[in-house]
Amino acid sequence: MFAMSTAVIEDLRRALPPGRTIDDPGILDSYAHDEAAWAPHRRPVAVVRPRSADEIQQIVRICLEHRAPVVARGAGTGLSGGANSIDGAVVLCTEQMTTIKEIDKTEQLAVVEPGVVNDDLRKACAEHGLWYPPDPASAPWSTIGGNVATNAGGLCCVKYGVTRDYVLGMQVVTGRGELVRLGRRTAKGVAGYDLAGLMVGSEGTLGIIAEVTVRLRPARPPERTIAGYFDSLSAAGRAVAAVGTAGLIPSALELIDRHTLLAVDAWKNMGLSDEADAVLLARTDTPGSGGDEEAAAILACFTESDASWAAISSDAQEAEALFAARRLAYPALERLGPVLTEDVCVPRASVPEMLTRIEAIGKQNRITIANVAHAGDGNLHPLLIVPADDAHARRRAEYAFERILDSAIDLGGTVTGEHGVGLLKRDGLTRELTEPVLAMHAAVKQALDPHGIFNPGKVIALRAPQC
Amino acid sequence: MFAMSTAVIEDLRRALPPGRTIDDPGILDSYAHDEAAWAPHRRPVAVVRPRSADEIQQIVRICLEHRAPVVARGAGTGLSGGANSIDGAVVLCTEQMTTIKEIDKTEQLAVVEPGVVNDDLRKACAEHGLWYPPDPASAPWSTIGGNVATNAGGLCCVKYGVTRDYVLGMQVVTGRGELVRLGRRTAKGVAGYDLAGLMVGSEGTLGIIAEVTVRLRPARPPERTIAGYFDSLSAAGRAVAAVGTAGLIPSALELIDRHTLLAVDAWKNMGLSDEADAVLLARTDTPGSGGDEEAAAILACFTESDASWAAISSDAQEAEALFAARRLAYPALERLGPVLTEDVCVPRASVPEMLTRIEAIGKQNRITIANVAHAGDGNLHPLLIVPADDAHARRRAEYAFERILDSAIDLGGTVTGEHGVGLLKRDGLTRELTEPVLAMHAAVKQALDPHGIFNPGKVIALRAPQC
Repeated sequence: MFAMSTAVIEDLRRALPPGRTIDDPGILDSYAHDEAAWAPHRRPVAVVRPRSADEIQQIVRICLEHRAPVVARGAGTGLSGGANSIDGAVVLCTEQMTTIKEIDKTEQLAVVEPGVVNDDLRKACAEHGLWYPPDPASAPWSTIGGNVATNAGGLCCVKYGVTRDYVLGMQVVTGRGELVRLGRRTAKGVAGYDLAGLMVGSEGTLGIIAEVTVRLRPARPPERTIAGYFDSLSAAGRAVAAVGTAGLIPSALELIDRHTLLAVDAWKNMGLSDEADAVLLARTDTPGSGGDEEAAAILACFTESDASWAAISSDAQEAEALFAARRLAYPALERLGPVLTEDVCVPRASVPEMLTRIEAIGKQNRITIANVAHAGDGNLHPLLIVPADDAHARRRAEYAFERILDSAIDLGGTVTGEHGVGLLKRDGLTRELTEPVLAMHAAVKQALDPHGIFNPGKVIALRAPQC
Repeated sequence: MFAMSTAVIEDLRRALPPGRTIDDPGILDSYAHDEAAWAPHRRPVAVVRPRSADEIQQIVRICLEHRAPVVARGAGTGLSGGANSIDGAVVLCTEQMTTIKEIDKTEQLAVVEPGVVNDDLRKACAEHGLWYPPDPASAPWSTIGGNVATNAGGLCCVKYGVTRDYVLGMQVVTGRGELVRLGRRTAKGVAGYDLAGLMVGSEGTLGIIAEVTVRLRPARPPERTIAGYFDSLSAAGRAVAAVGTAGLIPSALELIDRHTLLAVDAWKNMGLSDEADAVLLARTDTPGSGGDEEAAAILACFTESDASWAAISSDAQEAEALFAARRLAYPALERLGPVLTEDVCVPRASVPEMLTRIEAIGKQNRITIANVAHAGDGNLHPLLIVPADDAHARRRAEYAFERILDSAIDLGGTVTGEHGVGLLKRDGLTRELTEPVLAMHAAVKQALDPHGIFNPGKVIALRAPQC
């Protein structure tokens, strides 16, 4: 292993300009895992930070020669361990490829390097009267390359869809070391298989993304916010179902539970937990009188589902404060101890039942489980909180984590709505998918990464396809 | 060949209920090709019309045993020859699988058999206050299975996207004869590779679709229509660009050229060609005052681009008549002679240049080329009209067809926006995609259809992947 590692590093150093290749152990450790520190990870043999598509290609070719695993990484904000390093791996980090190459107003598209930060792209688009919708909570730090690799979601998905819906094309370095263009620049296109779409959400296991062409939308009108306070999670769940059944499509529909409100209050003293056991936050961005009607209709869904208080916020600052509470959920809960983040997605009608089961699983395993949710999508984020340095509690949390996945599958849902499989959901995936479908995954992986160098062991544990 | 064919038919007859398997030569001929009669086709050895997913699986297994090619077919309305039969093939036609299994208002989805006709699904959804958007011109006849296999587009794509954007999941019979579920029922999901998405647009070359789960939207408000008459194609092209640059997203933006107007008039005497050289038809379905503003803004784009006449239609019947002219384009032109249908898609800004090049190609090759276009998407349908029984003209048309593809590629576009590759665009595809990308296609095909029984020779001419 050591000899091979040295050879890879030497070849990388020889091929790339100075400063690209890092083997300082302290720095290597800081690139050893993403936000899923709970999942297994090892110190990589090198971290390489290319500055161009050509450099990515050179790195992949060198790794192919040495059969060294390549773990692609953007900002490392992933939550499933997709960017966790393995033994002998070269971590290929795109954080220095931050150029927005093009923003085209007529074609409504942007061409970006993979390391462009999500919020930076959104800001740049706004200057052209355009909008890049996908808005994961990690948007201030996460990169477009990472967003594409995990098919990231966010708050506005309920109306505008996920990253997949905004990827037109990309440059990719393949498992044969070629730099290729997949997809297109046109609004529509069906020329051949949707290989660009196949790359989206493949978590660095099928190729390395070297450039992305994303679809944009015109800048949207200001949103109105509708807030509802509820005395129970089930009342909030009924309100979510009522919004769907009424045929309304809000531009966000978020749920925050009592545990989360308490944690945010304990940190920021916002007084939210005095008022409600569950808060729903909805938004609408329909312009003009249509938007007024939509906001009123959402409000009616809240009040008719026994909201203890509900209102359309006319004050942008007040609305922003409520959404800030949503965004603060994760850091507020992390103050209480290490957090294991779930990401199940269930049919909308099953949201109340799923919340009930999560509560029961928490009680059975003596684990505090807070909930925030993209409720309008049925995408729940149970957050399992464990006291620091409590190995027993950690094992109970890991057990509860798997039981939540089982419940989601049992209710017709999926183990991951937007965070990806990585390592944390790999066992869950084998329970969600059937053996022949897993074999199809393996066959596709084998077809596009014949030497098995891209992020081995992530998403699927490779098995030989049965011919 | 004959002995094998007989054996396949015998096995199919033995395995399936009576009436499923047809080998009457006259009937076989009627299933030998889709609407692309210009493309090569052969009489199949049998047509099988299964009535369940299990029967599809049985058919595929029998064909696997005999290594008989399987050509999947819905209503046969395809325009690229994707459903054209080849030597020794079994045509698997899903036209008798017409059950809408489920329409769920809360989850906003429907589960359908592949033979459900597009318009029938739309009507059924309307009864639940729901809407299935993809609306190819073939909607009165084409099936959801065929729409999914070709990733069909339509008029409302400019705002609502294509079939791909509405496919949540499906049942598929694989190249190993397994009946599997791909995708999901939830609003979001990233559990493994997007294999359901990969099947969309794969034209029956990777698996046989046995059931489809589609995403629905709430029924939308009535549309307003904005019509513009122009004295030149280039003025109409400028108006289309102006709509895009103004950040407007109409729910349809269609172009009809002079040749088409003349043909419709000659048939239906609508008097359109007296008024304009090119007509633009736009729609908006934004509700309330926002919709009023949008319609006015689109109108302004038309008048500022030198429309000779433009108006917002307040009369639903009048608006319907204009869109009827759009829908009548194809049959009206077919009255003049056999029509070869193009389907290029170019960047929006290149629409005027592409129209100019199409005109020049028509003149150079002495072929009348009419144009209808989903102009808002840059998706043009040049229609090459050939006098009946004129073999020379036919060859000139086939030459012009390929030159139009070259022009689209040259302008950064694609050889097919929504009709698919089939046989007619296969050569064009090899010019649009690079060798390594074609090899990726072959590798994926080989991985999922290891015995090469699914629609061989369509989309790609299979070559061995280079490992």
